[in-house]
Amino acid sequence: MAGPCPGATSENQERGVTAGMKFCSQCGEAVTLRVPDGDNLPRHVCDACGTVHYQNPKIVVGCIAEWEDRILLCKRAIEPRYGLWTLPAGFMENGETVQQGAARETLEEARAQVAVGPLYTLFNLPHISQVYMLFRARLESLDFGPGAESLETRLMREEEIPWGELAFPVIAESLKLYYRDRVAGRFPLRSGHIERLPGPERRFRTRIYDHTELDFQ
Amino acid sequence: MAGPCPGATSENQERGVTAGMKFCSQCGEAVTLRVPDGDNLPRHVCDACGTVHYQNPKIVVGCIAEWEDRILLCKRAIEPRYGLWTLPAGFMENGETVQQGAARETLEEARAQVAVGPLYTLFNLPHISQVYMLFRARLESLDFGPGAESLETRLMREEEIPWGELAFPVIAESLKLYYRDRVAGRFPLRSGHIERLPGPERRFRTRIYDHTELDFQ
Repeated sequence: MAGPCPGATSENQERGVTAGMKFCSQCGEAVTLRVPDGDNLPRHVCDACGTVHYQNPKIVVGCIAEWEDRILLCKRAIEPRYGLWTLPAGFMENGETVQQGAARETLEEARAQVAVGPLYTLFNLPHISQVYMLFRARLESLDFGPGAESLETRLMREEEIPWGELAFPVIAESLKLYYRDRVAGRFPLRSGHIERLPGPERRFRTRIYDHTELDFQ
Repeated sequence: MAGPCPGATSENQERGVTAGMKFCSQCGEAVTLRVPDGDNLPRHVCDACGTVHYQNPKIVVGCIAEWEDRILLCKRAIEPRYGLWTLPAGFMENGETVQQGAARETLEEARAQVAVGPLYTLFNLPHISQVYMLFRARLESLDFGPGAESLETRLMREEEIPWGELAFPVIAESLKLYYRDRVAGRFPLRSGHIERLPGPERRFRTRIYDHTELDFQ
């Protein structure tokens, strides 16, 4: 595993709300939340030792691992979204590349070896300060199976994808794009954002960016 | 600004070595560095309150902002690499998209408004746990100038790029790819990694990934 799972156990963690920092990790004194000199956003600042503690978005990396006309899905053995299906993906670790992270997560969650190809989807999840990067990948063999965080792993054809039982909107959106692009046999990078709408229900708004609007190729 | 600048002042910060956490930011007790149960990497763990403190790579976002056949460069007014030239770029902030971050950094460093286009280069810098994402962008007007972190901003043609005075290898590599792709008039996503070689000198090794090797389009 690579950090807390991308949707961790409590509602707060799932929503990416980091518990506010209370003490300085350098000197142990209490921190205050304020805009440091020369900055324009509030940060946790230690007035005892002067450290400014920045918090930045996290990268989630994963694979669409292909075997002929099938791709590899994992059934989650952990909360949240226990029992629902997802692509192998998780938090990138320090010291690795995004591609190495995507391969590592695929190995950990599905015990599968892959050759990682091009980045295919780049999704912003600003409400939880996550950036998802899903890569096309080639499964190296049929020797795979559930890792500790999966109940089951399965190669699926398009008609087998359990659309109503996918764990996260970013997975559903990526797979919709993937099967649309597969018709044309071309997989240009797709990018967009997914925002959770206010309220207790799990409702989301997705936008896929269209750069041709701006005359970019 | 968005966090410490991507190459901050001390050698340690430039190398991305986060000062080791000493105290728990939740309860103020001392932390220990060990592999938590069910994990496989050492983390800073608080045995008093049970919090595991994960550290993850940071995203640096920026723009290759075009105006006709010229692009916008900034001369750094801050260390490290004071007085050298760079593309407008900086750490992504929580709550924004990568594209919004790239536009914000361009506004802060060059006071320039841009329409952000497709992701063009994706570079891993694993030795400092950074992921660089540079976007093609269209400069909206000629109303720009140095922000607080720049000495000077200038639109440059290819023959004006100060190759020997660029601040970071990731900028030079991205611009080399950009001018090569411009010949063909196509700008597919380019990805690779840059590693700093051991030793006191600033020496780097770059690899650009070639997915056609793997038969990916």
